[in-house]
Amino acid sequence: MNILEIIAKKRDAKNLSKQEIEFFIKEYTQNNITDYQAAALIMAIYINGMNDEEIVNLTLAMANSGEVLDLSKFGKNVVDKHSTGGVGDKISLILLPIVASLGIPVAKMSGRGLGFTGGTADKLEAIPGYKTQVDINTFIQNVENIGISMITQTMNLAPADKKIYALRDTISCVDSIPLIASSIMSKKIASGANKIILDVTVGSGAFMKNKEDAIKLSKEMIKIGKLANRETICILTNMDEPLGYAVGNSLEVIESIEFLKGKMQEDVKQVVLELGAYMLKLAGKGEDIEKNKKRILENIENGKAYQTFIEMVKNQGGDISYIEDTSKFEKSKYIEPVYAQKSGYIHEINAEKIGELACSLGAGRIKKDDKIDASVGIIFNKKVSDRVKENDIVAYIHANKLEDIKIAKEKLINIIKIEEDYKECPNVILGKITNISNI
Amino acid sequence: MNILEIIAKKRDAKNLSKQEIEFFIKEYTQNNITDYQAAALIMAIYINGMNDEEIVNLTLAMANSGEVLDLSKFGKNVVDKHSTGGVGDKISLILLPIVASLGIPVAKMSGRGLGFTGGTADKLEAIPGYKTQVDINTFIQNVENIGISMITQTMNLAPADKKIYALRDTISCVDSIPLIASSIMSKKIASGANKIILDVTVGSGAFMKNKEDAIKLSKEMIKIGKLANRETICILTNMDEPLGYAVGNSLEVIESIEFLKGKMQEDVKQVVLELGAYMLKLAGKGEDIEKNKKRILENIENGKAYQTFIEMVKNQGGDISYIEDTSKFEKSKYIEPVYAQKSGYIHEINAEKIGELACSLGAGRIKKDDKIDASVGIIFNKKVSDRVKENDIVAYIHANKLEDIKIAKEKLINIIKIEEDYKECPNVILGKITNISNI
Repeated sequence: MNILEIIAKKRDAKNLSKQEIEFFIKEYTQNNITDYQAAALIMAIYINGMNDEEIVNLTLAMANSGEVLDLSKFGKNVVDKHSTGGVGDKISLILLPIVASLGIPVAKMSGRGLGFTGGTADKLEAIPGYKTQVDINTFIQNVENIGISMITQTMNLAPADKKIYALRDTISCVDSIPLIASSIMSKKIASGANKIILDVTVGSGAFMKNKEDAIKLSKEMIKIGKLANRETICILTNMDEPLGYAVGNSLEVIESIEFLKGKMQEDVKQVVLELGAYMLKLAGKGEDIEKNKKRILENIENGKAYQTFIEMVKNQGGDISYIEDTSKFEKSKYIEPVYAQKSGYIHEINAEKIGELACSLGAGRIKKDDKIDASVGIIFNKKVSDRVKENDIVAYIHANKLEDIKIAKEKLINIIKIEEDYKECPNVILGKITNISNI
Repeated sequence: MNILEIIAKKRDAKNLSKQEIEFFIKEYTQNNITDYQAAALIMAIYINGMNDEEIVNLTLAMANSGEVLDLSKFGKNVVDKHSTGGVGDKISLILLPIVASLGIPVAKMSGRGLGFTGGTADKLEAIPGYKTQVDINTFIQNVENIGISMITQTMNLAPADKKIYALRDTISCVDSIPLIASSIMSKKIASGANKIILDVTVGSGAFMKNKEDAIKLSKEMIKIGKLANRETICILTNMDEPLGYAVGNSLEVIESIEFLKGKMQEDVKQVVLELGAYMLKLAGKGEDIEKNKKRILENIENGKAYQTFIEMVKNQGGDISYIEDTSKFEKSKYIEPVYAQKSGYIHEINAEKIGELACSLGAGRIKKDDKIDASVGIIFNKKVSDRVKENDIVAYIHANKLEDIKIAKEKLINIIKIEEDYKECPNVILGKITNISNI
């Protein structure tokens, strides 16, 4: 077996065997195959595709290319939740303490943000003292002690995926469904999940810009889940406008704390209930979806979910006085209101553009090593479909540099599209695709 | 314009503009585009193809990526001859002195051999004293003085082609007609030809293994020639068995000298006459092909072609006493006869296998920096279709290492296939494809 034969096979649209895929992944991870050979093979995969068997073999080979987290001590119902990315996406921060409070062990390694999408690890680090980088033993111990730990990725999980992902970015091979699906699923499998719930975001602020592509990606991922023996549910959610009211790291943490205290934004609530109810079902903690949603709401009302969040923060070294009094979070120097230029209904708040704007204020990274400013971002007063009058405040810009404000204001006025005619409130939950027969 | 957009376009089977192709070639030559980006683009070209306009733009961009030889002082009828490679292919050594003796200026830069095919420059260097590496002014001066100079490639011709060719070899993208055609034509254009005659070899010892592919390649090359305003003729010739009787550097030089002295091997003669007659026509030195062939034979009989060869060798610093007495060429230590194992007709002498065998004796290079042993090789006594009796000598192995002989003998016995039934003499000239209307 050699890489030239493997490249030639895929070049000619033939199927690669398990051994060939494993050979490529192993040798590429060990730098025995060059980047240009990998680039040629990946382009051939992009153009000629892969069948289901090849995709699952690629996924498993990438999952096994580095360390694999062993969560077997937490039983057979370890559920991992993953979002394909978005703007204002604070679902993990809210949802995971809730399901932990309902008895699902949560051992969550989250990514950092890059480009216009935020990362959960960056948001957690906005809490003073919160340690996202802990060793694996402490991580596991935390889950055993209090049922939840949320950290950043400290293990060498799926290094082949990391290499291939970085390469794809430089050779115009990012938006390939087989490659995206295997990338996501390989990381989930390497991080020890045996049941997987995926928040597949759709719209301007998501990777999948339309529902058709999101469905294709979801179908691919549930197929991989089935063949890799992982029960998988994909929930398609709207990411045309930012989720909730806050975009920016500490601003989103505050919104999340408010949610857990009972002040629930409607779109965030719908996503939390939908994902949470199916997580409970996947974990064998409740068959009936509607009942599960009620139990989630109960655990918010009775303070148990909030209490779990507090415990988690404490356990990770975070200062819980910030959680108990969110006014302690450092504010940005400038908080500038943005006014509606005319009366009407909000028709559009393009999430990608908002993500880029927040990024330009310092809330995100353009390059991998950029520093994040936790305090900056945008708070919306209004959402799509809301009625506004001329000169109503539609949003606040939180910035630390005076020169940012003028540009950000102009941009924001253009991004928040107001029209005279009525605009219906967009659906938040757009669909559900699963490989489990009884769902 | 950026490389990611260009890769994405070809990935999606769209056509690249002249500017995009020029951008890629320029930036890749200057190392501003990485090998992995080039690999991805080349794989996309391999799979999705290129239209005629793209191919000619690629060819011209590669031709102009380095120095371009200016032969305009020799008029508008500078003809370059190129072979797509073969085993025992000494045509340039014989043909070019002939056409020079008939008034066509010959300024020929030849390649070195790699793998199983030999290179004309290596053969010339088998002549003691012959300098293949001369500066361009001397090269041009030589052509002006005596009408012919044959050297190795001393200019930085088509460096983009060199880079892309080396890359293609490592990413399974060699056998792509658009890429082969543009590679060949870019070198011809960079080396100053405005009329091009191509010996497109077909068979086991050629790059094109069958006639269909050779026709496709030829059609592509004449299209490029037409669009690049270069009259081009492709002559398809048989390369199933080695050409002539000798394979090996000084052995082929001796065979060539003998040819020029009038001892013409039939298959070599047919190729020389066909290519030569069309070269004369291309150069405006004679419209009638049959008459041209006669003139070639005349210049062999009257010694003018041989005399031109002598002058060229002398002019390049070669010792002409070797030409006048070929017994002076250093012999290999061992000359071992190989006997027919049974009586019958020779059905096959696989040229590729002979090329590999000669290479293993030291006549060729496996790696680019290997040294060549000029004296070793194989001399055939018989050709395909010849009748043999058991124990007839069918070939001689010329070797310098005792341990080579036994292995080479066994191999040669297997390569020279003898069967009882009659085998027709294979056609040497297989076809002609041109972009010139009156041919």
